[in-house]
Amino acid sequence: MKTDNSKIKLGHGNGGRQMHKLIKDLILPRFNNPWLNRLGDSALIGPENNRIAFTTDSFVVSPLFFKGGDIGKLAVYGTINDLVMSAAVPKFISLALIIEEGLELSVLERILDSITLACKKEKVKVATGDIKVVEKGACDKIFINTSGIGYVLKGRDLTPSSIEPGDAIIITGNIAEHGLAVLLGRRGGELDFNVKSDCASLAGMLLPAVSKVASVRFMRDPTRGGLATTLNEIAEAAGLGVTLEEKEIPVSGKVRAACELLGIDPLYIANEGKALIVVKKSGSARLLRLLKDHPLGKNARIIGSFTAKFKKRVVLNTLAGGERFIDMLISEPLPRIC
Amino acid sequence: MKTDNSKIKLGHGNGGRQMHKLIKDLILPRFNNPWLNRLGDSALIGPENNRIAFTTDSFVVSPLFFKGGDIGKLAVYGTINDLVMSAAVPKFISLALIIEEGLELSVLERILDSITLACKKEKVKVATGDIKVVEKGACDKIFINTSGIGYVLKGRDLTPSSIEPGDAIIITGNIAEHGLAVLLGRRGGELDFNVKSDCASLAGMLLPAVSKVASVRFMRDPTRGGLATTLNEIAEAAGLGVTLEEKEIPVSGKVRAACELLGIDPLYIANEGKALIVVKKSGSARLLRLLKDHPLGKNARIIGSFTAKFKKRVVLNTLAGGERFIDMLISEPLPRIC
Repeated sequence: MKTDNSKIKLGHGNGGRQMHKLIKDLILPRFNNPWLNRLGDSALIGPENNRIAFTTDSFVVSPLFFKGGDIGKLAVYGTINDLVMSAAVPKFISLALIIEEGLELSVLERILDSITLACKKEKVKVATGDIKVVEKGACDKIFINTSGIGYVLKGRDLTPSSIEPGDAIIITGNIAEHGLAVLLGRRGGELDFNVKSDCASLAGMLLPAVSKVASVRFMRDPTRGGLATTLNEIAEAAGLGVTLEEKEIPVSGKVRAACELLGIDPLYIANEGKALIVVKKSGSARLLRLLKDHPLGKNARIIGSFTAKFKKRVVLNTLAGGERFIDMLISEPLPRIC
Repeated sequence: MKTDNSKIKLGHGNGGRQMHKLIKDLILPRFNNPWLNRLGDSALIGPENNRIAFTTDSFVVSPLFFKGGDIGKLAVYGTINDLVMSAAVPKFISLALIIEEGLELSVLERILDSITLACKKEKVKVATGDIKVVEKGACDKIFINTSGIGYVLKGRDLTPSSIEPGDAIIITGNIAEHGLAVLLGRRGGELDFNVKSDCASLAGMLLPAVSKVASVRFMRDPTRGGLATTLNEIAEAAGLGVTLEEKEIPVSGKVRAACELLGIDPLYIANEGKALIVVKKSGSARLLRLLKDHPLGKNARIIGSFTAKFKKRVVLNTLAGGERFIDMLISEPLPRIC
């Protein structure tokens, strides 16, 4: 089949290989600067002792409401988590709404209530905002952009270039819940596995833990593209290989059953309340204990480690005793998951 | 005619009365905090001697390209201008794209080139970004959100509460060019008045001028809703009245002719490269000279002043020698102007 390479495809937004190529080919060469080139979850701005983190994300999830969350909660926690990944204490967010003419005001109010609650819980202030309304048919109900500003913990500069062979990889809990909850929500409950999105702020669990464990090297939340794609990103940025133990990757029974029925791989499904943490091996046990003490971290596990034996790839030691390469997400099973 | 008040209307995004009511009724009571409540073009964050300005704007303009600009240039300069209005030196922007599946890559590249050029001219860095792709029909081609961070000039805190009776009001040039260029562009050139958008960064003109004239009280760029709406906003926030001299308001012959033909009032048409500046009367002549020395300010004029004789209203002394109240924009002649 001939593909038309002159047009934007859904895959350009899926977080996987096609999106990375778009960023590498069209974005980075144009804007080429040290802040953007790091491709961190946030940009780090200002002098080392007084650094702020700055991040942006648009949310176009469909449906707007799903088990465990909604577009408003997602927009707040998604941006908070991007700041937390840079070891920054989230302080301020912007809120920009693009609304389709005809949206029920009651729907907007529900979303605003959800945003309010999330901000209150996390002590984050909506400091500035914008509202645009487009004519019916020019957007799908509502899109939300939140940008965020946080204060980076003194002296902390989490970067993949600090990762060394032997470093441990921790996932903070069960994977694939958010993407699956949205997918199932889209099917209008015809399949009900009672899978809830894991959408949550990671600030309360991760910032204290990172403060206590100086050997945390890097964190990233495995959202679009899932754990597999995010680990490939980190491996590429670190210039090292990743070995992953399938038996250690925490997946709930419900999620496993739903994924099998739908024929999708939980390694590629988005998470919205989990982090991958790279930590020096000697600090990993302590970090794991700290995570497990928090309700969001009770299923945290060490799932693998970095190696210099191969580079920029992820190898999975399977349950069956084999090993296979795990690539980034390539196709697009999951549009508008966030 | 019965109107349905349970749904979002285009007027909720026009910058005028309906949008202000939405913000006052639904947004402010929920997020109630001193940063947002100021409703400045930017939020001011941090201690007085080290303050940053933070702003956000989404751009949904249709068509994407128009005489004098395009959505990319608009997104960069719009956010730069919001920072400049708070007397902040623009430093960093975020760039979040929501793209419709099927958009020509060549169109995306043209827009990215325009963003690159605008950032380079203004020495602003794209520090962080996001890309979402939605399925065909779920948005109209491309929407762009830019948030911005700037450093506030030391000791400057421009706020409408500092405005006093007698203060002069300056507009930095001819009005109504942006909105009209977009409107005419939408008609596909069937009416060609050769009106170009005034889309421009105001940093180079305004930051040096504000540095030199300590008695500048407040600035705002009259975008959506035009000069009339923005002056009403300032009058309300200042708790004072505004007297405006119609004969002093600079409108080019082309714009006047096009507005007459289309039956629209230039006072309500969006500008994207103009500022309203409130300055103590004693500083107004000096400020005007400084503005006129800059190419973007050659048509700058003192167009009115603040008064305590009436409150929170704008009165226009007309060319015909009468006077009339000028309200905020109420109806919605101009959706998706920015």
